Amino acid sequence: MKSYRKELWFNVPSRRGFVNITPQVEDALRESGVREGICLVNAMHITASVFINDDESGLHQDYEKWLEALAPHEPVQHYQHNRTGEDNADAHMKRQVMGREVVVAITAGRLDFGPWEQIFYGEFDGRRRKRVLIKILGE
Amino acid sequence: MKSYRKELWFNVPSRRGFVNITPQVEDALRESGVREGICLVNAMHITASVFINDDESGLHQDYEKWLEALAPHEPVQHYQHNRTGEDNADAHMKRQVMGREVVVAITAGRLDFGPWEQIFYGEFDGRRRKRVLIKILGE
Amino acid sequence: MKSYRKELWFNVPSRRGFVNITPQVEDALRESGVREGICLVNAMHITASVFINDDESGLHQDYEKWLEALAPHEPVQHYQHNRTGEDNADAHMKRQVMGREVVVAITAGRLDFGPWEQIFYGEFDGRRRKRVLIKILGE
Repeated sequence: MKSYRKELWFNVPSRRGFVNITPQVEDALRESGVREGICLVNAMHITASVFINDDESGLHQDYEKWLEALAPHEPVQHYQHNRTGEDNADAHMKRQVMGREVVVAITAGRLDFGPWEQIFYGEFDGRRRKRVLIKILGE
Repeated sequence: MKSYRKELWFNVPSRRGFVNITPQVEDALRESGVREGICLVNAMHITASVFINDDESGLHQDYEKWLEALAPHEPVQHYQHNRTGEDNADAHMKRQVMGREVVVAITAGRLDFGPWEQIFYGEFDGRRRKRVLIKILGE
Repeated sequence: MKSYRKELWFNVPSRRGFVNITPQVEDALRESGVREGICLVNAMHITASVFINDDESGLHQDYEKWLEALAPHEPVQHYQHNRTGEDNADAHMKRQVMGREVVVAITAGRLDFGPWEQIFYGEFDGRRRKRVLIKILGE
């Protein structure tokens, strides 16, 4: 069994944002040499997500608005967590809706995707350096 | 390491619906011959889900109502994504709540499940042919 | 390929609660002897979650409040599922938001985590014995 590990680093300049990381995951897969197996991609931080959906800017605006309605940033004092001096409690909620990780099948050396599947890093508490882990296992 | 791949095809006749796919996943597991490993089951489309929960019709009605309250289909012009000519933005939201994929342990040649765990395909934008991927890895 | 399986048992004395199970998962990883691979941790019950987030009590209070707003326990007759004699339909909703499972990379014999990642059992219908499955695969 082959095993390959790579970190991706981000510093999203705004509080929230979505970054298409599919090309970087494909690069890692090529580097791994794995032909049959799985690829785990996960946020290493608990106020960020990795998820699979469509690369369509209108949809991303919809996600932003929808997540803000489900778990508003303001008022920050609404959250107990923010009494620790943080202002990112809402980001911990948004991350749970969007998910921590994706597991993608690898078939014949490629990410085994449907027609519109793209992998995104979802940042909910940006303006700092944060990481995503790619772990590839197979043969 | 053995590797096995199978696609399931669906054409749900209504916009939304839940389909218990546990028997098909069990079939795939038998066909794979894997005794110890994991089974990844994921929607290959971004307006559908694969999730594990109870096969109880009342609960499925509750999910339908709850998801529609969290991310209403109407008014369709509420969503930026629908300006592309689609009317399925809500389906992209519902899919995030219910999830893209499940990873199930395989032990002694069986899906290693608790008493009530069943695997479902969740359709949020039906009336078209769509796929689920089953990928099984192990020995 | 090595394969290791372990169950954790819980009996949370209240309806809802979060239990940090990171030490137990680390114990299982040591027992498995796996150095490179993956660790699947999943609830075996459909009214409970396994998720990764921060071990901060204020945040856990926020999750409790937020989940109760998204999927209220009361009125129990609001849910079709509860006509079966259950009163836990809300628990099935909360579990979908928080997720069934996590997949964690194993690198050099350790859970490959970012600085704040901790694994939790999330109970939404407690006061009974329930299980979590740990399945470790690798070399």
